[in-house]
Amino acid sequence: MANEIKAIVFDTFGTVVDWRGSIINDLGAWGKTEGLEVDWAEIVDKWRDRYNPQKARVRNGELPWTNLDELHFDSLKSVFAEMGIQELGHDKMMHINKVWHRLQGWPDASKGLHRLKTKFIIGPLSNANVAILVNMAKHADLPWDNVFSCELFQHYKPDPGTYLGVCKLLYLEPSEIMMCAAHNYDLAAARNLGLRTAFIARPTEYGPGQTADLHAEQDWEFVADDLEDLATQLGC
Amino acid sequence: MANEIKAIVFDTFGTVVDWRGSIINDLGAWGKTEGLEVDWAEIVDKWRDRYNPQKARVRNGELPWTNLDELHFDSLKSVFAEMGIQELGHDKMMHINKVWHRLQGWPDASKGLHRLKTKFIIGPLSNANVAILVNMAKHADLPWDNVFSCELFQHYKPDPGTYLGVCKLLYLEPSEIMMCAAHNYDLAAARNLGLRTAFIARPTEYGPGQTADLHAEQDWEFVADDLEDLATQLGC
Repeated sequence: MANEIKAIVFDTFGTVVDWRGSIINDLGAWGKTEGLEVDWAEIVDKWRDRYNPQKARVRNGELPWTNLDELHFDSLKSVFAEMGIQELGHDKMMHINKVWHRLQGWPDASKGLHRLKTKFIIGPLSNANVAILVNMAKHADLPWDNVFSCELFQHYKPDPGTYLGVCKLLYLEPSEIMMCAAHNYDLAAARNLGLRTAFIARPTEYGPGQTADLHAEQDWEFVADDLEDLATQLGC
Repeated sequence: MANEIKAIVFDTFGTVVDWRGSIINDLGAWGKTEGLEVDWAEIVDKWRDRYNPQKARVRNGELPWTNLDELHFDSLKSVFAEMGIQELGHDKMMHINKVWHRLQGWPDASKGLHRLKTKFIIGPLSNANVAILVNMAKHADLPWDNVFSCELFQHYKPDPGTYLGVCKLLYLEPSEIMMCAAHNYDLAAARNLGLRTAFIARPTEYGPGQTADLHAEQDWEFVADDLEDLATQLGC
């Protein structure tokens, strides 16, 4: 099995990077220098709550293809309005929005990916647009061979065109590509198309009260504690 | 100037990798093991002669978008026919065609790119499709942040949509991106759209008798001896 796999693509938010912790730390420190006393944990949770509904607007045709940076900006303004926080100037709002470009990996992420890269083509397969993923990779030392952003396919996961788009770009069969994610729905969509699957639980992705995706819900080909463990299981 | 530049994109064939020398070496060695006595230098020169006419067929609409791997395969069969060489079985023809995935960098390429990557987003902007560029990067240790293949834009250089496509994916202005190439026509097209430019002469790209692109033909922003020299000039 492992010998047939040529490439591994990774969900990014949650699987590779700790978006919630990174945003609270980054904007918490920045907010202090700006004298901005707000609850960043509440902001990030409300911001992320808008993620699936926003993608759904693209999927159901209410919006034409719209990059995640732009969906994030729209959601951010809506969160500020809901919480009664006055909008800042454009540059500061953009600085907040671009926090998704400055996320940090989980402690095992960079090391694990460097090991996996020695044996496999590795890349994110993420709903984030190319700019987010390229900047994030430099910030968090994620040594991707290529960035497979859903922007390239103009579809958000779990639309089939995203997983099959990677196969087409790499001239590989689905069975030669493995999807790695901390989210069972993502792996189910990939498996349904013939890709191999690897699950990593990230039980604090959504904070201390997380209830979803604590365990593998199918017999995924690989279940690992983290990316370093996955590298070990794959002989890297 | 150098402080405004956020990303550098590189022509690949000739600028970063020595396609002619690599192919002669790779297929020369393989041919011996196969008992195939042919003149690989003649084959590669005839193969490359078909490159511009093939891209023109896509540009003028004679062909729909067609990846370089497929144009190469079509050209390879035509070269064999012209030289009276009998076609080999499919797997061997594919092995020959995929030699473009196994090219070696010029001696300065990997080191220079590793240095440039510390300060800039780097990527190929190449007519090669994604699979060629990803495999080549692993083979020749080219540490791209992202692969900007013309396949993503469904246009071959020097069509404007290729250079502007990179700007759009990175959310950068043309003046924040520099095109690096060993070919004056490529830089002229990039400059015309507002990109910065860097020229590196590769006087043996086409073999000992090369007559074109021996010198910079405009006052490009940077003219360097090789990629290590470019890194030095840019303070990397």
